Amino acid sequence: MSEPVRVGVVGMGTVGSGVVRVLSQSADHIARQAGRPIVVEQVVVGDTGKPRGVPVPGNPISADLATVSDNPAISVAAMLVGGLEPARSITLELLRKGKDVVTANKALLAEHGPELFGVAREMGRSIAFEAAVAGGIPIVAAIAECLAANRIESIRGILNGTSNFILTRMEEDGSDYAEVLALAQAEGYAEADPAMDVDGTDATQKLAILAHLAFGVWVPWGQIPRVGLETIDQELLRFADELGYRIRVVADASRADRTLAMRVGPTLVRKGTPLAETRGAFNAVSVVGDAVGPMFFHGLGAGQMPTASAVVADIIDTVVGRAAITFQTTGMLEADPPAAPLAGGGSSRYLLRLQVTDRPGVMADLTSVLGSEGISIASVIQHQTAAGSTAVPLVIMTHTCEAAAIARAVAALDRQAAVQAATSCLPVLDD
Amino acid sequence: MSEPVRVGVVGMGTVGSGVVRVLSQSADHIARQAGRPIVVEQVVVGDTGKPRGVPVPGNPISADLATVSDNPAISVAAMLVGGLEPARSITLELLRKGKDVVTANKALLAEHGPELFGVAREMGRSIAFEAAVAGGIPIVAAIAECLAANRIESIRGILNGTSNFILTRMEEDGSDYAEVLALAQAEGYAEADPAMDVDGTDATQKLAILAHLAFGVWVPWGQIPRVGLETIDQELLRFADELGYRIRVVADASRADRTLAMRVGPTLVRKGTPLAETRGAFNAVSVVGDAVGPMFFHGLGAGQMPTASAVVADIIDTVVGRAAITFQTTGMLEADPPAAPLAGGGSSRYLLRLQVTDRPGVMADLTSVLGSEGISIASVIQHQTAAGSTAVPLVIMTHTCEAAAIARAVAALDRQAAVQAATSCLPVLDD
Repeated sequence: MSEPVRVGVVGMGTVGSGVVRVLSQSADHIARQAGRPIVVEQVVVGDTGKPRGVPVPGNPISADLATVSDNPAISVAAMLVGGLEPARSITLELLRKGKDVVTANKALLAEHGPELFGVAREMGRSIAFEAAVAGGIPIVAAIAECLAANRIESIRGILNGTSNFILTRMEEDGSDYAEVLALAQAEGYAEADPAMDVDGTDATQKLAILAHLAFGVWVPWGQIPRVGLETIDQELLRFADELGYRIRVVADASRADRTLAMRVGPTLVRKGTPLAETRGAFNAVSVVGDAVGPMFFHGLGAGQMPTASAVVADIIDTVVGRAAITFQTTGMLEADPPAAPLAGGGSSRYLLRLQVTDRPGVMADLTSVLGSEGISIASVIQHQTAAGSTAVPLVIMTHTCEAAAIARAVAALDRQAAVQAATSCLPVLDD
Repeated sequence: MSEPVRVGVVGMGTVGSGVVRVLSQSADHIARQAGRPIVVEQVVVGDTGKPRGVPVPGNPISADLATVSDNPAISVAAMLVGGLEPARSITLELLRKGKDVVTANKALLAEHGPELFGVAREMGRSIAFEAAVAGGIPIVAAIAECLAANRIESIRGILNGTSNFILTRMEEDGSDYAEVLALAQAEGYAEADPAMDVDGTDATQKLAILAHLAFGVWVPWGQIPRVGLETIDQELLRFADELGYRIRVVADASRADRTLAMRVGPTLVRKGTPLAETRGAFNAVSVVGDAVGPMFFHGLGAGQMPTASAVVADIIDTVVGRAAITFQTTGMLEADPPAAPLAGGGSSRYLLRLQVTDRPGVMADLTSVLGSEGISIASVIQHQTAAGSTAVPLVIMTHTCEAAAIARAVAALDRQAAVQAATSCLPVLDD
């Protein structure tokens, strides 16, 4: 067998520790897969005094990045520091010193992708990032390689395990958002600061990366319409259930004519469909290709070992030379990627939940607002009011209409005197 | 952009026509993916007089294999002839003339894999075969590349679309096997000769290939225990439903201690689990890896365009150089693959359906047969008998036991005077 490949691991948080663990506990298996042993030569951390859950047998730990970047024995670096800085500077330094980089940091790629991929290209190095999207699910390879013969028509995924965990617990336990969030934090399914997960940022960054691979466009993630999880309450979950749906945070990028409709946010998905049956911390991605038809992938989208599985697969790909080829063929963020033909959000059926004053004539006033936008109504639910309550929930399911039309209609509804709270508006996926 | 790569297509049946169609209708897209155009230089068919559904624009059709094998302009050949001969001879000739080969022919690989991969290796060529297993689902790439960091614990799949189509139609329509088979043939979901599909041969050959990739062993497909679909009737489907299960033909390869348990056949799968919800002509594969945990893939496992999607992805992989690397790293069927440590079938819960004489003491006699094999009973169903019937169905769900023990017990049960027909025995998957 050939000489070992020596790897530097930068960052020893949850994922970094998992990578060191997988490389160590499956060393023989991985050596067979790569045709040569892969050994961790050096670990770099921010604070060498901090206790680590995983031993790094025989390998020095240093706080000095130069122990990896300036080490001629190391050819591949796993850059597993989260956030934007110092992750960006570290990645640039590794690339400029000639290292191939493997990373799980989707925020970094979504924010600084054009710069990082540009430097990698300039230096003749590769960046592999399977772990950045949907953890252990090989969705990057699927789109970039396995479905390469297809023009992709849509990508729809549950890409954030934390928000899916919260939603399914709300659905199963009947608990409120705040309550379940606290539980998720206690059980380790949500960060102390869960903002990026629950406001949709994390899923949106992942969608920007997948859309680039699938459609060749680069949509800065901040331009993608995004709705957070905190807008969902038990009443909405119950109405969805009554209508035959569940609520999931869906990241959606779909071709419509010559434009691309993208959005991330709570969505009604019909019970029994794969996205509706994706529960807890699992991720799922549904891809439709013009030749292959509908493909569905389901697996653990986060967590130490599933993410480490993807990082180590990328290390192997880099070692054997596949990553360099794929980096070149996908042309990740080459100069002037086509301007994003981002549509207004496409068209969909929508569920509206209004809180309205219970008086005669209200229904006619409100439905005429929809009518004036050309939106027709598929079904309405209004249950009998509890005695003494003045506001009643009114739920309307529309037929298919344009995202722009429903947005105007919701704004007009919320200006009506009879509407007592902001109207909830969720798109509906039936297949 | 670089010079075009010239491809030979050998065989213009359903899949071959699909490949020519995809390469032609998505030519620009595929050229971007491969970094250069991919053009069909020559098509070879058995009978040039036969009408073709797909035009081959500007490309000659010949019945002479030498127009591909001896054509120095052609570097990659898609070998899309089914069956064993002349597919084997054609493949050997293509490899010996220095062509890289892409194929969808699982029977060929399962039967002659060691010979073909050996010649490919000798000639420094590659064989890519994503399309041979589960059509458009990229399960070969997933196991060979994306999950390379994992020791695979189990692979469980619905790998034959024809038998799954028949089973779900029997389930939904209440029709008998023979009736649905005739319908499937009329609708094009089953071949005129469906034997290889319904007797489990096709799924078993695919399982042999996946097991080699996942576990490194080579089990000749004829050694894998295999049960056909014709053993399933409406009564079994109804009992399964009553117990909360569906019946699917599952191809199963699972590690147990230091051995591998493999089998293909009708299996009870709990309702709501992904395999149970796989319907019609869809395929599905569930893979458990030690790091990634459970992964699930679902998509169209056969048909012209899904299969062509996989063949063209393999052609692209071959053109860009990934296929050559993967062919080398997976060491497909290198000399002396480890002897298969094939276990007796592992352990499982089982459903037994007996047709018994309705007389006092029968239940005690039969359950004591199970007891003497150390098999304990989880539940029993015996419904009230229709007046005048002498045989009644008795259904027993066991706790987990060894495959060898249940096989002995079934043989002993079938020797009992009170047992009037061969006992049905199906393993049960609860997760």
